[in-house]
Formats: sequence, structure tokens, C-alpha cells
Amino acid sequence: MKQSQLFAKARREAPADEVSKNAQLLIRAGYVHKEMAGVYSYLPLGKRVLEKIERIVREEMDAIGGQEIRMATLHPSEPWKQTGAWDKVDVVFKINSRTEKEYTIGQSEEEIVTPIAQEYVNSYRDLPLAVYQIGQKYRDELRAKSGIMRGREFTMKDMYSFHETQEDFDRFYEGAKQAYLRVYRRVGLVAKATEASGGSFTNKLSYEFMVLTDAGEDDILYCSECPYCVNVEISDQKEGDACTRCGKGTLSRAKASEVGNIFDLGTKYPTDFSFTYKDRAGKDQKPIMGCFGIGITRLMGVVVETFADDKGIVWPEGVAPFAAHLVSLGKPSDDVSKLASGFYTELLEKGIEVLYDDRDLRPGEKFAESDLLGIPKRIVVGKDATGSGVFELVDRKTGTVEKIERDELIARFARHG
Amino acid sequence: MKQSQLFAKARREAPADEVSKNAQLLIRAGYVHKEMAGVYSYLPLGKRVLEKIERIVREEMDAIGGQEIRMATLHPSEPWKQTGAWDKVDVVFKINSRTEKEYTIGQSEEEIVTPIAQEYVNSYRDLPLAVYQIGQKYRDELRAKSGIMRGREFTMKDMYSFHETQEDFDRFYEGAKQAYLRVYRRVGLVAKATEASGGSFTNKLSYEFMVLTDAGEDDILYCSECPYCVNVEISDQKEGDACTRCGKGTLSRAKASEVGNIFDLGTKYPTDFSFTYKDRAGKDQKPIMGCFGIGITRLMGVVVETFADDKGIVWPEGVAPFAAHLVSLGKPSDDVSKLASGFYTELLEKGIEVLYDDRDLRPGEKFAESDLLGIPKRIVVGKDATGSGVFELVDRKTGTVEKIERDELIARFARHG
Repeated sequence: MKQSQLFAKARREAPADEVSKNAQLLIRAGYVHKEMAGVYSYLPLGKRVLEKIERIVREEMDAIGGQEIRMATLHPSEPWKQTGAWDKVDVVFKINSRTEKEYTIGQSEEEIVTPIAQEYVNSYRDLPLAVYQIGQKYRDELRAKSGIMRGREFTMKDMYSFHETQEDFDRFYEGAKQAYLRVYRRVGLVAKATEASGGSFTNKLSYEFMVLTDAGEDDILYCSECPYCVNVEISDQKEGDACTRCGKGTLSRAKASEVGNIFDLGTKYPTDFSFTYKDRAGKDQKPIMGCFGIGITRLMGVVVETFADDKGIVWPEGVAPFAAHLVSLGKPSDDVSKLASGFYTELLEKGIEVLYDDRDLRPGEKFAESDLLGIPKRIVVGKDATGSGVFELVDRKTGTVEKIERDELIARFARHG
Repeated sequence: MKQSQLFAKARREAPADEVSKNAQLLIRAGYVHKEMAGVYSYLPLGKRVLEKIERIVREEMDAIGGQEIRMATLHPSEPWKQTGAWDKVDVVFKINSRTEKEYTIGQSEEEIVTPIAQEYVNSYRDLPLAVYQIGQKYRDELRAKSGIMRGREFTMKDMYSFHETQEDFDRFYEGAKQAYLRVYRRVGLVAKATEASGGSFTNKLSYEFMVLTDAGEDDILYCSECPYCVNVEISDQKEGDACTRCGKGTLSRAKASEVGNIFDLGTKYPTDFSFTYKDRAGKDQKPIMGCFGIGITRLMGVVVETFADDKGIVWPEGVAPFAAHLVSLGKPSDDVSKLASGFYTELLEKGIEVLYDDRDLRPGEKFAESDLLGIPKRIVVGKDATGSGVFELVDRKTGTVEKIERDELIARFARHG
């Protein structure tokens, strides 16, 4: 894409009403537009990042047998009253309509997915079942000041699974845990599966997936030797204690940010909806249910918080809006511009995702904006390139500069997809 | 996909509480699940159809220069009060929150997109601009009984454009009209651009795109010779009159269903938000604005209504959830099943989208369900195929049966993508 045609331009100043680093940077760089506290629109660059994250999540959920659906977001109140959430969960929006009925907009979808599963699951032969969707969620938050990390509206992947036995549930739960860890790795983050309380959904334990970052709202204890990790909220251990799990390591304390959670819901929702199936002996049984969430917009915010430096955003390759930022230092229709434009076309032809800064601005201005946008690799086409055919490749994260010949440069991007 | 793994199964009876043909068929065939009147969830097959339609719409909007974004659906009330819609438009949902503020969920996005454009359009150099999104919309309808054709929640593509001059607007408007006609053609429909009133948005004329179908809620008059077409609501002509546009044809009257609309909004919204840019002479000017909508879920409903026959749904190739329905008549692990499974793998390897009915059911049951699902081509693998290598290919629409040799069959699907 040519940057001259991108309507959402970067700007110098941070918005005055925004306290979070993620939203400040994303607004300045033209990725998002703030509608109100906790509600953002995603402009072309922001939308590209969301799609990258969503594709990764979709692939990993498909790989463990999830079937994608698209559930309603406007819900009748009846199922929410049936589960007790209508009165119990304070972030549930309540909508009065012109009809006699009350509605809500979903903050989660157990109330919708359980009756759907109930319609199609009659026998043990129909189990296990895992369905998921990627869509908008809504929470009536009193305060919202973490930018896109905690919104009144946000995009979430929510998966729900139904099982015959606790063993089958445990097997799927472990598979989902591994799929989640793969998602975070592909997004560029290292997350820890952290034991936490089940919240209002369940009395059982649950896992929260935590990324160690100073921007985190949570505190965790983690072992130096084994994967053991626990939210301090539910632990009576403290920093320096020996790990009770492996007996070898010691516990460290750190700030962390939640980037997903998985819950064992037991049979709560099937009980609420009188949802039974015929087991192998022909007896009525309730399925065991799990819930598996990843906040897509939240994950984008955590990536920004985790990698940004004093010059701007730094995207990991897996979620960057473009693989390369081609910056021409030419003036309109001079030799440098012609060389850059030809190279842009060639990159497009090779299927390389490239943002092409074809604007007539000072180099300093272009470089500062390129740093702010955070595309992993910058290709600079200046005067010397016209003679030598050698371009400058700058790594956004490390600042490393390489001089690379045109064909080698293309080959390198083509290799990375 | 193997049909044994598809969780949403077809069922014999139509739902008792559903009067519209589109929802009756889509529910029976397992494409959608009804949450309440006017609100549906889309199950795996339904989601596939929506994605096909969305891809076509996206490609055509990109082709005329639209930039895709993802706007918030939870809106603050302030911009809606600023344009007057909060009090004037009766289908606007009003949400009381725990904060002091009132919110709505968008039934259109002029109130959000105009301030976004205002932020980035400062000069005539930033125009024209066209942005679009595909997302959920909400209308507080008193009654909703047209199935997925008129919902309280629905999926819509909405594009908004901003222009320097009326000439530039008219040029873009004509291009959008042609893009719309291409969308409908690719979806499998023939639509007419019909002159209509601008509704509550504008006093200017607008176009509605109408598909001739007996299920339509509108009545139109159209010329036998030229493209002239008008909603009877705004015409004082009648059937049999001579066409005043071309002077050659005569007017026929028909039932039709709206599948999109485009509005010249003039400067209403820029006026409401005091949105000006500097023109070529350095003077402040308001941009001229257009709005271009296509109801994605509605379009799916109209396709069902238009093509369904007494056996079930009939999908046009462009939007079918799968290109082929492979139906095995074998018993578990007999030669017929093995042949069918091998052929299924081969089709997948060639990138052909195929639903494979691998279930152990009677042929009559399988064929009835295949007819109900409406996939354009059915490949039947029976006993005779094991010897001859010749399969039966049945066209869903015409019922035509062909005997085709395996390689020729694959080549034929590969050609159609």
C-alpha cells in the first residue's frame, strides 16, 4: 500500500485524554481512533494487525478441532436470567427496547452457546464438541483507562467445549493449553499458564495466561526451574519461597498481563438449561463444559506495551501490519523515486506485504514516522542506491543497518513469507 | 469437511415459530440458529456462506478504492444527539449504563465515521476518501418476521465517501453503482438499480438495488427496453405506461426485494459536526458525503428465497458453502467407502471445497438431506463406481445426472476453482 493513499496519518502529539501507553502510541501512529473511554475504532493499519492475530488464533483453534461459528451479540434476557448472570454479573449491559422485552449485548456467550449445543447434542456420539467464534464483546465497566487492553467493547475469541467424561475434558483442556501457548509464541510473546481462581463462573481452578510485562495489572509468582506459576491473589506463598511443585526452584514475583484464560465450567450451564444427552448405557447425563477465551484487541495492546521503545511501536513479525516499510528519499519523479516505485511493484509481485512511503517529506520526518509505525524492517532507497543497486535495510527493534543488494533483499523477504 | 463431524445436523421439521421461508429452510438445514425474532446465530455452514458473500463485497469495494476499517459498534450518545438521530430515528437502541452516560449500538455509522474523517481530512489533497467496514448493525424493530432478511441484529457492509465537488461525488457514485451490480451478479442475482426516496437521511434521490422475487416486500416498475426502474412509492406511473426515460419500452410491475442502497447525503453530517477542509483557494469547505450499504445477512436470505425449490435450498456457485457434496453410499469400511474416502482426500489436495457425507445412513435419507443443503453439485459414489471408476454427478438446480470418469470430474471442479 502507498502511504500517500493511507487516510489515517501519524501525528506528533499524544492525545491529551489518554493515559495508557498502548492507546497513546496506537492513536499517534494512526492505528486506532478513540470513540470514548474503552471504545476504539480500528483504522486500516490497526485492522491489519487484528487480522494477523485472528488468523493465528483461528489456525490454532481449528487444529484442535474447534468449529467456527458466528453467534448473535444482541441477546434476549431470558437465558441470562436462567443462569443468574442477569442479576449477578455487574458488567452485563441492560437494554430496554420498544418491544416488551429486555435485551443485552454479550459479555460472554455461555447463555447462547449452551442452548445451541443442546439442540444438536442428543447422544454420547455427538461428543466431544468444541465451537468457537471471533467477535465483539461488551462490558459495562465503571472505569476504562487501559486503552485497548480493557474495553467496554472489545474483540474476543471465545471457544466452548462439551464432553462426556472428566478424562475427555482434561485431555482437551491440556490440548487447548498447548494451543494457547503456541498462539502467544506466534504472536511474539512468551506467556505462562498461571493457576488462578475461576472467578464468578466456577469454583474450580482455572488457568490465566500471563505475559511478563511492567505494564501488567496482575502480580504472579513463578518458579525458576519448572513451569509452575500462580497468581498471588490465590497463593499464600511469597517471593523467595521454595517451589512446592518441583522442590528445586525458588519463586520470583513479577508484574504480568493476562492474555487469555481457560475455565473448567463443570456442569453449571447444562444444569441451568436442563441439557442432557444419552450416555453409552442409555442414561441421561449432563455434559462437562469448558470455556476458552483470548482477547484479540487486548493481545494487540499487550504486544504494544511489551515491545514499544522511546521511538514508538515495535511489532513482532507475526503480527506486523506489513513485513517491510519501503521508504523513498526521492523527490517526485526523480531517479530515486522511480527506482523505489519499481522496487515497490517488484515486492508486490512477489507477494511481500509492503507499505511504501512515496510522500514528498524530509527524510528525518519519514524516519521518525517509520519508527513510530513499528514495521519490523525498513528498506531505505536513497541517492546512492540509484548507482549501486544496494539498499539500506534497517531493523526496527535493534536499529542494525545492513547494505543489501536488490535481489538478495527480495529473496530474504520471500523466505520469511 | 466430513459431515459426520459437522455438529449442526439437518432436521426434518420446520421450526413452528418461524414464518419466513428463508429462516425455515436455513434452520432445518443447520445453517442458522434462532435466538429470538430477528436475531440469529450462524453455524458452520451458514458462516461459510456469509464469508463467501463478504469476500465478493470486499473485493469489489477495494477495487473502487475503499479502505477497510473496523468501527466501534458501542457508541456514545453524544454524536447521535448532535445529528438529531437520537430522538428522530425510532429504531435506535438506547442503553443505560452504570456510568452516567447513555450509549447506543450502531444501526448505521455516520455518527462515528464523520468525526473519524474529520480528524484526518484537512485539505482538498486528502479527498476523495472512501472507507468501509463489514460488521454488525442493530435496529430496535417492533416486529421482525422476515427471517434473516430483516433483523434486530444483522451484518452489513457500509461504506462512506467524502468528496470535494459534486462532480467527483457523481463519478464515485456511478462507480459504486456499477460495483454493486457486479456484487449481485457474482452472488448469483440480477439486481436493478431503482430510483427511490432518500428516507430520513436525505431529501435527495437515492438508489435501491432490487432483486425481482415473489418474496419481495417492495413493488417496482421497470422498463422493458432500458435500465429505468422505480419504486412505486415515489412514482405516479403505473403498469402498461410508456417509459418516459427511453420513450420506447413499456413499464411492468413486479415484487422485489431490496439488497442494497446508496445515498447522496450532501453536506448534512459535515454540517452537524462542523467538518470543513481547506479547498484549492484556501477557503473552508464542507465535503460532500455518500453512504453505500449492502446487507450481507439480508443478501443471504434473498438468495435462499429466490432460488429455493420444494426440496430445499439451491445455492448459486459463487456463495455455496462448498463446491461439491460427495455422498458415499458405502457401509463402514467397505470398498465403496474406501473409494469415496480416497476421492475425498484427492479433492481436498486439489483445493476443491467439498463436504463429504461419510455417515452410515440410507441413500434416500442422504439424498433428501443433500437436496435440503443445496450444494450446487452432488457426486454420488455407489457400488458401480468401484468397478468402473465412473461417478454420478447431479446438478442440484436442474436435477441433471451425468456419469463422469474420475479424472474428468476432478478437472471440471478444478477449472471452476
